[in-house]
Amino acid sequence: MNESMERLLEAVMGKLFIPLEASGRHVHVTKEQAQTLFGHGLTPDRDLSQPGQYVAKERLTVKGPKGEFHNVAVLGPERKEAQVEISLTDGRTLGLNPPVRPSGDVAGSPGAILVGPMGQVILSQGVIAAQRHIHMTPGDAANFQVTDKQVVSLKTFTDRPVVFEDVLIRVSPDFATYAHLDYDEANGCGFVKGDLGRVLP
Amino acid sequence: MNESMERLLEAVMGKLFIPLEASGRHVHVTKEQAQTLFGHGLTPDRDLSQPGQYVAKERLTVKGPKGEFHNVAVLGPERKEAQVEISLTDGRTLGLNPPVRPSGDVAGSPGAILVGPMGQVILSQGVIAAQRHIHMTPGDAANFQVTDKQVVSLKTFTDRPVVFEDVLIRVSPDFATYAHLDYDEANGCGFVKGDLGRVLP
Repeated sequence: MNESMERLLEAVMGKLFIPLEASGRHVHVTKEQAQTLFGHGLTPDRDLSQPGQYVAKERLTVKGPKGEFHNVAVLGPERKEAQVEISLTDGRTLGLNPPVRPSGDVAGSPGAILVGPMGQVILSQGVIAAQRHIHMTPGDAANFQVTDKQVVSLKTFTDRPVVFEDVLIRVSPDFATYAHLDYDEANGCGFVKGDLGRVLP
Repeated sequence: MNESMERLLEAVMGKLFIPLEASGRHVHVTKEQAQTLFGHGLTPDRDLSQPGQYVAKERLTVKGPKGEFHNVAVLGPERKEAQVEISLTDGRTLGLNPPVRPSGDVAGSPGAILVGPMGQVILSQGVIAAQRHIHMTPGDAANFQVTDKQVVSLKTFTDRPVVFEDVLIRVSPDFATYAHLDYDEANGCGFVKGDLGRVLP
């Protein structure tokens, strides 16, 4: 296939399908918390699919009442409030029962202890299982005929195909269009990198 | 509600819905392997929903190239061939990549090491992620208009509702009617004990 055909195919695919991504457990911290944990702000290591978002070089330990995870990814840039995003399976390991919530909605969620090389931070709340969601550009939202905060069903073209209901649409010019699943969902549908999904009408 | 109403409601619910169950990681062993691992045959501890099947008092360690699980449940009675049923998440922990297969279909699957209090067994194959499936009595299969080995979709009435495609129907007079998910699937749909599903037409 020549280059212009490839570009055409990519454009057509982008009108029909949405790339899937699996989000592993990760932490967001504030600037002050980064200082406490690492002695400095976050250092970008690798870009994420969402513009401006990155995996930091810094890693930390997340402790719950029953267990802990080491070497947990920290995503930057820093935020106004800390958030620990884990799967429900991770919750069992930590001894926590995180609510399924959109990112940023942490009121009343369980806390945890974050341990970095320079110090620790005790969170009184912030541990959630991220509600599955689709980041969309306004152009793609118009194409798929959905709006911000709408809840849709997402069919996955994966090894163990699934229709996920209650998938939250989030629209912003700052986004790139990707559907985000946690690892329970990703493994439950047999996701591998490059798999696609489709918003059901 | 009086007792006869309760029975009626239960009967009606049973015509419409299928109870869901989550299967944790577990191992099946042969009689000879039980001897090697425990010095005796399996001892029933707790009955499972499937008639005649039980969780044994015996527990063992499952070792893979990258990690191990301790205190893993052994299900009885003994079988003709060993089988280790884990989630894809568990596979990552062990450093194995189990295929998604119906129970008993272990040809070419990865092996593992089983360690019991009296000895160990090296399996050259047998580690699978169980394909999600619904055990059905012949009566319920007739009611739901499905047949043995048919593949259906299953909608879950759970906290994070999902339609699981590629769900294998297994019909036998030895079964009780239950849908079996692994923990990735169970957590991916927010299953809690008592939740129900529905076979989609």
